[in-house]
Amino acid sequence: MGFDLGGTNIRTAVARVDGDNATLLGRDARPTPQAGPEAVVAALVSSADAAIVAAKVRISDIAAAGCSAPGPLDHMTGVILTTQNIAGFANASFPLAARLAAGLGGPRVYLDRDTVMAAIGEGLAGAARGARSFVYLTVSTGVGGAIVADGRMVRGVSNTAGELGHFPVGFDRDVRCRCGSFGCVEAYAAGRNLAEAYGVGDASIVYAKAAAGDARAAELIARAEAALASLAVGIVNALNPERIVVGGSVAEHEPTHVLDPMRRAIAERAFKVPAAACSVVPSALGADVSIIGAALAARDRATGAGGWFL
Amino acid sequence: MGFDLGGTNIRTAVARVDGDNATLLGRDARPTPQAGPEAVVAALVSSADAAIVAAKVRISDIAAAGCSAPGPLDHMTGVILTTQNIAGFANASFPLAARLAAGLGGPRVYLDRDTVMAAIGEGLAGAARGARSFVYLTVSTGVGGAIVADGRMVRGVSNTAGELGHFPVGFDRDVRCRCGSFGCVEAYAAGRNLAEAYGVGDASIVYAKAAAGDARAAELIARAEAALASLAVGIVNALNPERIVVGGSVAEHEPTHVLDPMRRAIAERAFKVPAAACSVVPSALGADVSIIGAALAARDRATGAGGWFL
Repeated sequence: MGFDLGGTNIRTAVARVDGDNATLLGRDARPTPQAGPEAVVAALVSSADAAIVAAKVRISDIAAAGCSAPGPLDHMTGVILTTQNIAGFANASFPLAARLAAGLGGPRVYLDRDTVMAAIGEGLAGAARGARSFVYLTVSTGVGGAIVADGRMVRGVSNTAGELGHFPVGFDRDVRCRCGSFGCVEAYAAGRNLAEAYGVGDASIVYAKAAAGDARAAELIARAEAALASLAVGIVNALNPERIVVGGSVAEHEPTHVLDPMRRAIAERAFKVPAAACSVVPSALGADVSIIGAALAARDRATGAGGWFL
Repeated sequence: MGFDLGGTNIRTAVARVDGDNATLLGRDARPTPQAGPEAVVAALVSSADAAIVAAKVRISDIAAAGCSAPGPLDHMTGVILTTQNIAGFANASFPLAARLAAGLGGPRVYLDRDTVMAAIGEGLAGAARGARSFVYLTVSTGVGGAIVADGRMVRGVSNTAGELGHFPVGFDRDVRCRCGSFGCVEAYAAGRNLAEAYGVGDASIVYAKAAAGDARAAELIARAEAALASLAVGIVNALNPERIVVGGSVAEHEPTHVLDPMRRAIAERAFKVPAAACSVVPSALGADVSIIGAALAARDRATGAGGWFL
């Protein structure tokens, strides 16, 4: 079973895992409660029940469950640390995996960061299959990532590595980022930031306006493209990956404004040897990437095969 | 024995390696020939002879030799690929390790990139001792680096990973970099680039002018500091290292303009959890870092203990 716990929605699926192929048998989606950790656990359990019914299986058929969540978190102990991205978790240090396992009353639950789960999914069953060095990047409401180097997930000393959306690529102090810094890739290129900078509710409007000839929209999008281009060049030079897999809603809907500028910049500006070795490809698992990653991660951690990402 | 082959100088030392402590017994330094690979091999051999005499040992006492060189190169086969940084190697694919071993007539020679050798040196015997995740950064004529993540050297798919000096941190197209791109950390903060931007032969003059109140020098240095600050924040957010070890002549002579801005930016702008986990420290091995790293790398590769960096 895979859970994708986001700030807005909970998405849950029962998967049949055969080798590294995950077939989703039944699923559920519902809003994330805004009333704190206990309500979130209850909603996850209800969502699991619904997905189990939809899949026509029983809880005893679930071998293990993976839960994707925003960081920071401790994937070894299954504890969500203080996070701004789910209401009520800002001052929490909450043992989500243990509490969810108790609620489910059966399978063990393995927690990990959303972008790490996505990288596991793309690495085992998606667009990074076969690559020993790759970066997963999501360009969506925010910009996030995960790094796999020479066959191993880069975790860092406090398990927060991979926040490539918060690499500063510009010096503009007025381009503020939610993280408290300025000039981050996310501050220029995330959907939420684009929409806010233009003064609308959704980035799709900004792209539509630019396509219709609006100069201010076009300028904001050019700036977003420049930020993603710089990030792509920096990733290639610093990490020399074989692939950069780009997911997230903005990347999915606007590939010519996300993947194409990254590709052009790598070809024109990155070092020749690593540039020639790297391809920029769209996510193969789309919106299900974190659910599939969570299901595969759960299978691998339960069977002891997850050493490369732990 | 450790060799440090640079574009300007060859530096060689005989080291007694005891555990991870390397004591330099005798050394030699001489200009790098500008006449191509054969002349460079001959000079390395002569330099080795001189260092052996100075150390009062014999060639048969040398257990193994390591050679630090600019990249790109293949550290497994010991071949220098086309490099701009040593005269005559621009179109070469030259088996330096094998040719140097033949010239020495005894010890096996292990080749690796200068910044990787430096990271091995700092990791085993210097300022990164005990850290499983760290970044080595050199701020000198150029800006380069090497990344150790969770106990392993990050190599990438074509062995070029670590070029953190070529992460773009600004959008100014007129800040050209020798690599062919623009806006790289190196283009703002390297000694050579600072000197050229001001119109003098050495960066130390720019720092002296700024200290004497010259506005243009101060502005260039502020820009260099901003680039290093962005790089530091990006490294902390993306890689979550325990330590950033900063070496190179500019860092050594101007720590208040190199390490201090990095520290301030991490404290003010990076994510709190990885920021609290990371310290920025000066190189402990100074100008000998690549020689000591090369000697330790040679010992470890000869004895099979070098798995973490291969």
